[in-house]
This record gives sequence, structure tokens and C-alpha cells, in this order.
Amino acid sequence: MTDKDFGIREGEVAVELPAHADASLYYIGRIGTPWTERKDCPKNGRESDAVCTITVDPRWAAGLKDVASCSHLIVLYWMDRAPRNLVLQVPAHYGVQRGTFALRSPARPNPIALSVVKLLRVEGNILSVVGLDCLDGTPLVDLKPYFASTDSMPEAAVGWHGNKPG
Amino acid sequence: MTDKDFGIREGEVAVELPAHADASLYYIGRIGTPWTERKDCPKNGRESDAVCTITVDPRWAAGLKDVASCSHLIVLYWMDRAPRNLVLQVPAHYGVQRGTFALRSPARPNPIALSVVKLLRVEGNILSVVGLDCLDGTPLVDLKPYFASTDSMPEAAVGWHGNKPG
Repeated sequence: MTDKDFGIREGEVAVELPAHADASLYYIGRIGTPWTERKDCPKNGRESDAVCTITVDPRWAAGLKDVASCSHLIVLYWMDRAPRNLVLQVPAHYGVQRGTFALRSPARPNPIALSVVKLLRVEGNILSVVGLDCLDGTPLVDLKPYFASTDSMPEAAVGWHGNKPG
Repeated sequence: MTDKDFGIREGEVAVELPAHADASLYYIGRIGTPWTERKDCPKNGRESDAVCTITVDPRWAAGLKDVASCSHLIVLYWMDRAPRNLVLQVPAHYGVQRGTFALRSPARPNPIALSVVKLLRVEGNILSVVGLDCLDGTPLVDLKPYFASTDSMPEAAVGWHGNKPG
């Protein structure tokens, strides 16, 4: 494991990846955003009100039936440039070592990112949404309806972050 | 596409799957639940207060640092028995045709399920949580901290479901 290859910072720890994969993913569309370099991306989806697009491949477009009736969606996308072998990371904007599963960093064993977005409209196979933070051209892996009854936890807190509910 | 092979109901529509996959997943652990048959699983994670376990493979266990400080987690898991080719589905408990992306059905191009769980405790590489709805032995693909600031949308509504906020 050569640190320089992966840009590992002091305090970061990588593991050897498994010899083989267990399952496979299809890219089902692409995300269009105003950001073409990682430094320009907002730190999270709430930091920008830019309207982004989600273009679903024609193969899957029939699956968008009834999606327009959802006010919010969960978007899963694939962070194809992220290293997958980090278990301890030192995020640049905090400077403290944290476990990968306590972070929303794109660097994780399966680099699936998740954003909750507000749906503005659906036109054919193209959705307009607010709340994404990723690079233009990011591969889409899933769209789900957001149910407040099961997905909204206003009281949730992340202790290390000092993130208070509400 | 033979309907009988996939148990397709009247009104359901399948597409041909892509010829090749675009990315690969590692199973990073296993989920332990009281449910060994699909008919016994709760319809969603809020329907049961059963304590479930998430066992993270030793390879990745160091990534759990700081997770104990999170009150809630997002759990991504792989519905390895679900068909991936359905774009229109007729859920048994509704009986109406809906688009796959307007449903939380396990049948989707990438059968990644998502549950928000309450974290009870972390003991070594084993987490105890409440809020899962899946079969015992389901493969784990990711754990993320739940941030109320970006993930909680109490006002969200799913029109087709008649699901009102709050």
C-alpha cells in the first residue's frame, strides 16, 4: 500500500481489498450538476440551491411512473473516483481521524453516496432536483421515494460532529 | 421474458438487463434479524421494534471508530433474491401498478435497500439496532451516519401513497 498512490493523509489507514467482488451494479443514468472539479462541489447537498438534473437511461425510464407525485427523493450514486480501502480517514475540513462508517466521505468500501433531494419536475426521463453535491456526470445507481414516516429522524444526532437535532 | 420464471404479476413490466455490469460491490458484513422467511418480515423498519444485529467483517471493523456517537445510522444492504428487471410493479398490498422508482420494493435495477435505524450499542464489530425489516443473513453494503440537517425532511410527501408529512 503506497500512501502517495492514494493520497493518504497522516493518520489515515487503508486495508487490503477483498480478492473478489460479491455483486455487480448497473449505472442506470447520469447526474448533471454545475460542478466539474471536486474543489467546487458543495460540502453537502444543503449548501447549494443549484438545480441539478438526473437523466435516467431509456431502458429504465418506465420506472419513473408516479415519481412526479413525490416531493423528495433519495438518490444513490456511485463515487467512481474514490478509494475503497480506507477504514480511518482524516477529513481535510476537520483534521481529526474518524472511522469511515462515521463519515459521509465518498471513500468507503462501496462508494455509494446518498442525497435527499427536493424534486422540482419530471420531464420524460429527466428529473430536475435540488440538493445534490456531486460532480457533473456522476453515475446514478438508484432513485427511491422519501417517506417521512420511515426516513425522517429530526431528533438524530451525530455526537462526534456536535450536530444537535433540529 | 417468461412471467412464470420471475413471478411477474398482471400489470408488471420487465426490461432486458444490460449486457454487462458497470461496477462491483463487496459485502462488508451480515445483518442478523428474527425473520427467516419473506412473509414474516415487517413491511418496513418502523413496524417492528425487534433488536437486530449488524456484524461488520473484521477487515472493515476499524471503520466503526466514532460510530457509537451516532444516534441513528443509514444502513444499505443488498436484496440478493430480488429480480432486477422490473420497471412497473404491482405491490401485493396495494394492488396498483407503480413505477419501480416510486416504490421501495426490493425489486429494482440495483437491489440496494436503505433503512434508517436507531443505534443501541456497538460491541467490537457488532452493532445492535432497531429499524430493520430484512431477512436474517442479508448482506451489508454500507453504514453511514444519519445527519438530521441533511437527511431529515419531515415535510416530505409521497402523493401516490397519500402519505402526509409528520
